[in-house]
Amino acid sequence: MLTRIAVAPSGFKESLSAPDAAKAIAEGVRRVVPDADVDLIPLVDGGEGTAAALAAARGGRLVSLPATGPVGEPVGTHFALLDAHTAVVEMAAVAGLSLVPRGLRDPGATTTYGVGELIRAALDAGARRILVGCGDSGTSDGGAGALQALGARLLDANGWELPPGGAALNRLHRIDPSHLDPRLHETELLVACNPFNVLCGERGVARVFGPQKGATPAQVEELSAALERWADILTRDLDVRTDLHRGPGTGASGGLGAGLAALGARLLPRFDVLLDHLDLDTRLARADLVVTAEGALDHQTPLGKIPAEVARRAKRFGRPVLALAGTIGEGAHQVRSSGVDAYSSILPAPVTLHEALGRGGEFLTDATERALRMILLGARLPYRPDLVPQAEVSGTQRPSSVR
Amino acid sequence: MLTRIAVAPSGFKESLSAPDAAKAIAEGVRRVVPDADVDLIPLVDGGEGTAAALAAARGGRLVSLPATGPVGEPVGTHFALLDAHTAVVEMAAVAGLSLVPRGLRDPGATTTYGVGELIRAALDAGARRILVGCGDSGTSDGGAGALQALGARLLDANGWELPPGGAALNRLHRIDPSHLDPRLHETELLVACNPFNVLCGERGVARVFGPQKGATPAQVEELSAALERWADILTRDLDVRTDLHRGPGTGASGGLGAGLAALGARLLPRFDVLLDHLDLDTRLARADLVVTAEGALDHQTPLGKIPAEVARRAKRFGRPVLALAGTIGEGAHQVRSSGVDAYSSILPAPVTLHEALGRGGEFLTDATERALRMILLGARLPYRPDLVPQAEVSGTQRPSSVR
Repeated sequence: MLTRIAVAPSGFKESLSAPDAAKAIAEGVRRVVPDADVDLIPLVDGGEGTAAALAAARGGRLVSLPATGPVGEPVGTHFALLDAHTAVVEMAAVAGLSLVPRGLRDPGATTTYGVGELIRAALDAGARRILVGCGDSGTSDGGAGALQALGARLLDANGWELPPGGAALNRLHRIDPSHLDPRLHETELLVACNPFNVLCGERGVARVFGPQKGATPAQVEELSAALERWADILTRDLDVRTDLHRGPGTGASGGLGAGLAALGARLLPRFDVLLDHLDLDTRLARADLVVTAEGALDHQTPLGKIPAEVARRAKRFGRPVLALAGTIGEGAHQVRSSGVDAYSSILPAPVTLHEALGRGGEFLTDATERALRMILLGARLPYRPDLVPQAEVSGTQRPSSVR
Repeated sequence: MLTRIAVAPSGFKESLSAPDAAKAIAEGVRRVVPDADVDLIPLVDGGEGTAAALAAARGGRLVSLPATGPVGEPVGTHFALLDAHTAVVEMAAVAGLSLVPRGLRDPGATTTYGVGELIRAALDAGARRILVGCGDSGTSDGGAGALQALGARLLDANGWELPPGGAALNRLHRIDPSHLDPRLHETELLVACNPFNVLCGERGVARVFGPQKGATPAQVEELSAALERWADILTRDLDVRTDLHRGPGTGASGGLGAGLAALGARLLPRFDVLLDHLDLDTRLARADLVVTAEGALDHQTPLGKIPAEVARRAKRFGRPVLALAGTIGEGAHQVRSSGVDAYSSILPAPVTLHEALGRGGEFLTDATERALRMILLGARLPYRPDLVPQAEVSGTQRPSSVR
């Protein structure tokens, strides 16, 4: 009855990597159904851990190297080579928020220069198909730094090269693309991004993510104007035919999506790119039960978070979905519209956030055990399908429905 | 399938009364199974809320009056009249721990005098069958105060009456019972107590509860000796034929059990007395699912706590049992041996104990909804009983198995 269980969690931010979360869940499952065939499918969304997870899933390898971090200091980073021609560059590994010291959280100053260096290193390694994972970024420079590292010259009215950071783009006069790395012409750049994120306007990077990344209201306005200008001049000087201002994914990772799109990159819904690499659908289809998890479930979950994506896919095959989370937040019940049948918090008692983060693995294992026992309690009830309300998947959320 | 749901929770100490807990659970149930026949059976264990709960369940009434509190100050209190001849005296309502100001927590000094006054008031009201509920006490006087209020004279070697409190019993020389209320001869006194509580020895009142009630190690030893002496002299001067030192329940409510037993009261396992008043077994037997709850589930739960008692009874009829708790503590998995099939914490996120207590009702409702959805997820799985492990009830725990 519970022969095959697919365990497809996200990581728990600041607590558990996706592989560790999957292991913790599997341990709880085995306490209740020791003989179950548990399929571990740790999931990534393009952010932290993406390169390592894809390398592990596809038998690739990680290449370590130093590069420029988001505040200009060198950091140790890596990219993944999945095969001789395919690389994964994870922007969070070189420009992630966790690399920005708390005292230096000025989203107008941080740079994606290191992302451009990683792309160059991947080109040096022979890659001609480069998947760029977005998410967990600490930057809002519209990808300007990445373009500079790849050879573009961003010039002010006096012909001087701009300093790093999004705020400086208010002084951008023109872009000189003549020194861009020529190998880019023969390279397929794929950007895995959340299509709900756009570069400009009311739902743009500066207004939505600026405050999270440490911007004051005045900085938000400055940055918003700078990114608008950036999109204008990119479009003009690089002869871009797509909508860099409000196209889906242009706002990914502080606008890195827009910058790479100007180089000809394709911006793709992150799960279409990432989860297909993991053969997710086939694995969900053969499961009797799907267990997913994330640090929090709330009103944002249906807008492109992993548990919602897993549930939506599982429901295509009629599979029951259980979701576990550290925090059940405001609006969590909306996850039922994505196909999550039941969900629970993993916390056993009043604890501080600090303790919850530190004991995430233990809590997740215990909570999985408790949840499985509830499910088995239900399995013993005489079955009358007419009395069992099922989670219904409403239409896929469109970007236009984002508030 | 889930047509009848029995909701049989304890109260959540310092957060929810048992009736409020039952209502909160029912609300969560109805969110998932709107048409369910929900049977509310708020449960009490003899402690706080017992008189009110029994009065409500049996169509009785509460009688309010002033009496002597545990530190000697007058307090407003009450007893219940279930019918013309039957009263319920709840010791916690006049000598409970919550009536002892934190600065005055000296278990050698607090008194059950008010309990004796309540019994007298019940006799005045015509009651000749008096049920005394134990639990949540703030006293450790062996019931000495209650006996004094009922007319017994506790004399020292010089023939002086002893002051209140257990510690003074070290100076007890003899008891003069000649002025005891004569109506006690024609009255049935039933004490609802936890049979695991005994008056003397290593597992006695002073050693187990003294520290909880504020005693220092030296006070514990003094009190232990005083209660030993109290049991000796009670046995001698009141010609008691039962074991007041180590008989089951003699330690109930700081030894109130022993004091009342010396007056001829019968000490009865609290659930046998209380739950039968609520027709619990019949109501569990007709439920498709039993939901119970308490503030905490831990290794003590199987030792006579409400969720364990409910589960044990439900399992006699093969009913599935879900338990919800604010805290899943050390050893909680032991509740499965009492017949609890599945359990969960009610907390949705990292919160302080203070917040958890304040939002208990909301958390309990939401957690009930989440648990029911998990159970219904299970109900949709194809049913194969051979793969469904069931909670097995081990032998009823005996007092001898208490560590």
